[in-house]
Amino acid sequence: MKLYEQVAHSIAERIEQSFYQTGEKLPSIRSLSLTHEVSISTAQEAYRLLEDQGWAESRPKSGFYVINKQKAPQHLPDLSRPIQKPIEISQWEEVLNLLCASTTSDIVQLSRAIPDLEAPTLKPLTRIMSDLNKHAQASMLSYESLRGADSLRLQIARLMVDSGCRLHPDDIIITTGCQEALSASLRAITQPGDIVAVDSPSFYGSMQAIKAHGLKAIEIPTHPETGISLEALELALEQWPIKAIQLTPTCNNPLGYTMPVEHKKRLLELTSRYDLPIIEDDIYGDLSYISPRPPSIKSFDTQGRVLLCSSFSKTLAPGLRIGWVAPGRYVNLVMHMKYVVTASTSTLPQHAIAEFIAQGGYERHIRKMRAQYHQSRDVMIGWVEKYFPVGTKISYPQGGFVLWVELSDEIDTVILNERTMRQNVSIAPGMLFSGSGKYSNCMRLNFTDKPSVKNENAIKTVGNMVSKMLTDLL
Amino acid sequence: MKLYEQVAHSIAERIEQSFYQTGEKLPSIRSLSLTHEVSISTAQEAYRLLEDQGWAESRPKSGFYVINKQKAPQHLPDLSRPIQKPIEISQWEEVLNLLCASTTSDIVQLSRAIPDLEAPTLKPLTRIMSDLNKHAQASMLSYESLRGADSLRLQIARLMVDSGCRLHPDDIIITTGCQEALSASLRAITQPGDIVAVDSPSFYGSMQAIKAHGLKAIEIPTHPETGISLEALELALEQWPIKAIQLTPTCNNPLGYTMPVEHKKRLLELTSRYDLPIIEDDIYGDLSYISPRPPSIKSFDTQGRVLLCSSFSKTLAPGLRIGWVAPGRYVNLVMHMKYVVTASTSTLPQHAIAEFIAQGGYERHIRKMRAQYHQSRDVMIGWVEKYFPVGTKISYPQGGFVLWVELSDEIDTVILNERTMRQNVSIAPGMLFSGSGKYSNCMRLNFTDKPSVKNENAIKTVGNMVSKMLTDLL
Repeated sequence: MKLYEQVAHSIAERIEQSFYQTGEKLPSIRSLSLTHEVSISTAQEAYRLLEDQGWAESRPKSGFYVINKQKAPQHLPDLSRPIQKPIEISQWEEVLNLLCASTTSDIVQLSRAIPDLEAPTLKPLTRIMSDLNKHAQASMLSYESLRGADSLRLQIARLMVDSGCRLHPDDIIITTGCQEALSASLRAITQPGDIVAVDSPSFYGSMQAIKAHGLKAIEIPTHPETGISLEALELALEQWPIKAIQLTPTCNNPLGYTMPVEHKKRLLELTSRYDLPIIEDDIYGDLSYISPRPPSIKSFDTQGRVLLCSSFSKTLAPGLRIGWVAPGRYVNLVMHMKYVVTASTSTLPQHAIAEFIAQGGYERHIRKMRAQYHQSRDVMIGWVEKYFPVGTKISYPQGGFVLWVELSDEIDTVILNERTMRQNVSIAPGMLFSGSGKYSNCMRLNFTDKPSVKNENAIKTVGNMVSKMLTDLL
Repeated sequence: MKLYEQVAHSIAERIEQSFYQTGEKLPSIRSLSLTHEVSISTAQEAYRLLEDQGWAESRPKSGFYVINKQKAPQHLPDLSRPIQKPIEISQWEEVLNLLCASTTSDIVQLSRAIPDLEAPTLKPLTRIMSDLNKHAQASMLSYESLRGADSLRLQIARLMVDSGCRLHPDDIIITTGCQEALSASLRAITQPGDIVAVDSPSFYGSMQAIKAHGLKAIEIPTHPETGISLEALELALEQWPIKAIQLTPTCNNPLGYTMPVEHKKRLLELTSRYDLPIIEDDIYGDLSYISPRPPSIKSFDTQGRVLLCSSFSKTLAPGLRIGWVAPGRYVNLVMHMKYVVTASTSTLPQHAIAEFIAQGGYERHIRKMRAQYHQSRDVMIGWVEKYFPVGTKISYPQGGFVLWVELSDEIDTVILNERTMRQNVSIAPGMLFSGSGKYSNCMRLNFTDKPSVKNENAIKTVGNMVSKMLTDLL
């Protein structure tokens, strides 16, 4: 154990023993350096580690504070039980309604997974955009190369080392958000009519891509802590001519789990027999609360079978529409599918993000956001436990900023959403996350914002409405 | 005839009678006002009309000059004769090579259709981008609505009045360039295996979309002045189960023609019997050399059968990746196809372009560019006539900035391009514009830049190489 790790460890122990309480100010760097007889930079390193491990957070011009270390909720959701046969995805209308719902500023949007865009650590990115726009006008207005800006692909290849991937920049294609990465990947490896296995519940955007491509989905039971059931997947593979798997194994949307490394490896092994391509959605991966972030399935793939899809929409800003795909052996097919839908990706944000990463801005921002979302998760779970009826089941996210809540079977969250919307709070109904109308008693809530009275009241509004609906049922 | 029209007419007559010579300075606004005894503003209006009609161009701080009114080239290309049966598109590799070709600044790129990005009239757009970026950071970083920014859809609906269309902003969906508009339209109205009729030669991007969607194309003979042969189309419709038509009727890429209004109307009538959807690519429409610009097929459509696709990639800047589609009765299907490939379109450029149009910047820029490209066309045709072997056939574009050149049958323009590239000049080989390997003796050249010695030398290089290849054949 290195010196700074020892110092961090001793502080973490004291937090665990409640020597330092939640929200309490921790010793200053100077005092830590004096009491532990280490250099200032070692004390700084120690706090950096405590931040990464989710023990402490820094507040500007104030110092370091103990983060609320929420225990896992008492009742986790059950293992999901979707229909065990291939289905056609039905619910486009509902997705469209969610996406087109009014977005006036007086509505507390717990429904959409948009990151915090007011963070001060994002400001340098805006400055870089302005500079590039001003000083390199003509080149920023022209087409970027089909594959994407060289500088950005280089930076992404470097970032991906954190998830255990060693890629060449030419293994990466820049896309218009993660959605284009997922969509181009799906089309590259399937034909209309094919069956794709998915974790369930699953992100509605990728489910809609499956629908639009004329594919069928088989939804695999999924555990709220360990992810897709490998046993159920194995059975499905034996029973059906499955042509691809699509899943979000790290900081899953909507369930929040991260598949254990051993499961990720076993998934690769299991699918090796069928030489099956795997679309790995890693969009929330860098927002894992533990640091270093967990390895991707892609990092264990020696056969080029994994198409890793990601973007800066959750880590930086969705309005830039910059994502990427590392399609392994399918790179030429994916490139064709990318070309025909959008030709090249917009130029300015690619160069701005590359510069932001190169200057260290991405790492700084991610560290801040990880700590913020980690803390918000714990506050959010506390609120749901406080304001929702007894028996409510709550996920325990390991990264990202969405929570999955399972209510009593009688509650229909589409109706719940209609009612809370009248009180200016929107939630994402669970049925969006299934192709077969499951999860109608579930919902997804985001906890992007820093905890506030407004948000606490929003949760209270939803909780009270659930209680009222239950009472009405009696 | 209004007063300013009378004044303009008298000037135009004198230009036609060579009273004013090409390149000569025309009377100042003040002197025009004195000699014709009209107000200054009427004289200004007269010059504005002369600009719009392609007689005069204004030079900053200098005045108005006579534009070179090039007569049509002596030898136009022949009516195209593609194979008269549905085919699968073959040539992706060649398109990829063209798109990925080295773009160092010492190469004169006659191959790619990129507009002039150094024009001073684009500067205000850059300024607006910077302002929005600075003053509305968080909202510019967030998702824009799926349909696109309200402000931009309103401005596009207004612009489209010029082409005869009266649309509500909700009839319009913003897309990631015209490519997404074309691609989403194709997928909305066809199933894999279907046959789509196209004008021929045809833009390779839309041909590749046909290929990627698993469709077949039937290439319809096309006239270099009047466009797709309605007789040939009628025969094809009787013979094959064609599910859609895709064409570029106004300022065609690559041939440059604009279909006469009567042909546009007859095309609608003809396809009415089959209730056939028409994908109308209008990307160059606003760059027509005559003003007001020609009406679109969409403007005559009372059945919602026309899906009009366009973008700001040729009029403003391709790197912004902002296009749109007005899909008529197919609006919900197209929206789904747009959602699954890119979700929303990038936010900042949408708002910047809307503001640029609202401030009058778009109209000013387009007027300038139309005059510039008009003049460049004439200079370009002059150069090709001067430097290419006798017998070369040349198109006579009515808008946009690309020229189609047809050489002697023995010349293979793929080989020609390989050779001119060694002298730092790239051309677009004709075979890219066919799905069946036709047009191997043709090429497309752009004339975006203001005429320069560098560009004249580039044309000379290509012309000399063609002559050399012909001599070698003897």
